[in-house]
Amino acid sequence: EMNLSTELEKERKRVNETLDRLVSDCGNVESRLKEAISYTLNAPGKRIRAIVALWCCRAVNGDINRDGDIAAGVIEMVHTYSLIHDDLPAMDDDNMRRGMPSCHIAFDEATAILTGDALLTFAFAVLAEKISRGELAVEMIKRLCYAAGHGGMISGQMADIRAQNTKAGEELLKYIHINKTAKMFECAAVCGALAGGADQRQLECLSEYGLKLGLAFQIADDILDIHGSAEQLGKTPGKDRETDKLTYPAIFGVEKSKQLEKELAEQAIEVLSDFGEQADMLRQLVLLLLERTG
Amino acid sequence: EMNLSTELEKERKRVNETLDRLVSDCGNVESRLKEAISYTLNAPGKRIRAIVALWCCRAVNGDINRDGDIAAGVIEMVHTYSLIHDDLPAMDDDNMRRGMPSCHIAFDEATAILTGDALLTFAFAVLAEKISRGELAVEMIKRLCYAAGHGGMISGQMADIRAQNTKAGEELLKYIHINKTAKMFECAAVCGALAGGADQRQLECLSEYGLKLGLAFQIADDILDIHGSAEQLGKTPGKDRETDKLTYPAIFGVEKSKQLEKELAEQAIEVLSDFGEQADMLRQLVLLLLERTG
Repeated sequence: EMNLSTELEKERKRVNETLDRLVSDCGNVESRLKEAISYTLNAPGKRIRAIVALWCCRAVNGDINRDGDIAAGVIEMVHTYSLIHDDLPAMDDDNMRRGMPSCHIAFDEATAILTGDALLTFAFAVLAEKISRGELAVEMIKRLCYAAGHGGMISGQMADIRAQNTKAGEELLKYIHINKTAKMFECAAVCGALAGGADQRQLECLSEYGLKLGLAFQIADDILDIHGSAEQLGKTPGKDRETDKLTYPAIFGVEKSKQLEKELAEQAIEVLSDFGEQADMLRQLVLLLLERTG
Repeated sequence: EMNLSTELEKERKRVNETLDRLVSDCGNVESRLKEAISYTLNAPGKRIRAIVALWCCRAVNGDINRDGDIAAGVIEMVHTYSLIHDDLPAMDDDNMRRGMPSCHIAFDEATAILTGDALLTFAFAVLAEKISRGELAVEMIKRLCYAAGHGGMISGQMADIRAQNTKAGEELLKYIHINKTAKMFECAAVCGALAGGADQRQLECLSEYGLKLGLAFQIADDILDIHGSAEQLGKTPGKDRETDKLTYPAIFGVEKSKQLEKELAEQAIEVLSDFGEQADMLRQLVLLLLERTG
């Protein structure tokens, strides 16, 4: 829908401006490291996770506040760090990311490892320094550590690598998708909601929204890896099959995967039923996802 | 001195027990990741940075409290993460660490990258979840991000890698030592002092202590790389010269380096002059350092 693309473009600019501000305010950094941080943050990412944070803030608060912008920027930093490390030769070994050479190609492996480390650390610094209240900063840090750390993304990535070239089944696939992808979407939603001052019930609904959206997103991503272009994906397509990755289409086939994606999308919209029109963009985001995979 | 070795051994055990408690309480982790986390944390490190935190807590508070133990454990986690990533083939490429095969040798590169990432994230989780007051947690997180991130250690490591095989000079060498090593010692001292409830003046003194001790420690480490055994170092000796690393002995020679180390050690003791016998162990630690290099 035209309206949604315009909104997404506007919010992408908003996230990019926040990232620019945070980076320009980051103090002394070794010159090559700074170059690589800027290179990776400036690459044209879709900023979906960050936008989920912004829109969850708005769904609760009616508007995006300063804490919401900071939460969105931090989510994008952590996502970018994870992409840099995932693309390394020892991990998923991808030379292209967000339509540009991956960090270890544009620079080198050592720089890519350090740039990822720096972005992760920077994210926590931003929360500790810029969130308006200490209590709120601590809560966001806890949530982010859980989602991005051994309780989520890192365990998911470890399991994903180990599952390659094995005949692992549905249970492991779910574990990987929940941990590697969905928990960061959930965290984006929760941090945005916390920034907006969500009560317990709102927090639970938006947490659920993020989780379902994240799962649907990962299934869509797996499907696009088969059918999509490098342009749509921003990375090399066909890599999943090439490396014999465990994916939904590989286990269930494309049609069943689309069906699962649709069910998750419906659940994500359903869970927003108590929210009014302030949550409209969150609903439209789910529909856009379905459109992508057709 | 006999007394100091006994004390160091006791505190090492204390740090190890804290790490064991934190790891056993860390929730669900992918099995291989958990194995690698335990492997790297259980390797027989000297725990010097963590012990600096413990003893700075005691210098202020008279005793080591729960927050002091947590600060020490977190400092050790972050130090361990930095060693895992530094040892990677793309970085310093060292196969031996703390007298054992490095993480990427005992496991593989992907696991080592993820284990480092997990330990760094875990450290922030521990501060956010376990430090007694939110305000104190936020302050420690700020300090740790600065010391371990682009404002310190990561920029230091980036500069160190870039300085190899160049004819870089004294200024760059100082930059590397301050950022790569001394700021984490300073952070250990500051976090321990904060845990102990230090006032502004005590904080400044112990911060200075940590910085001077860290610089002296790095010079000692450079000297030992030439003369020391693998046993003393816990890693492969002679690597600095082999990779044409920028070190104090390489620029100033061994005798001048020992002289600089001695001056820094004296300054570290001098800055403790306002502290009573509660800071005795901090003073003795400096003297031990001098003994190591003879």
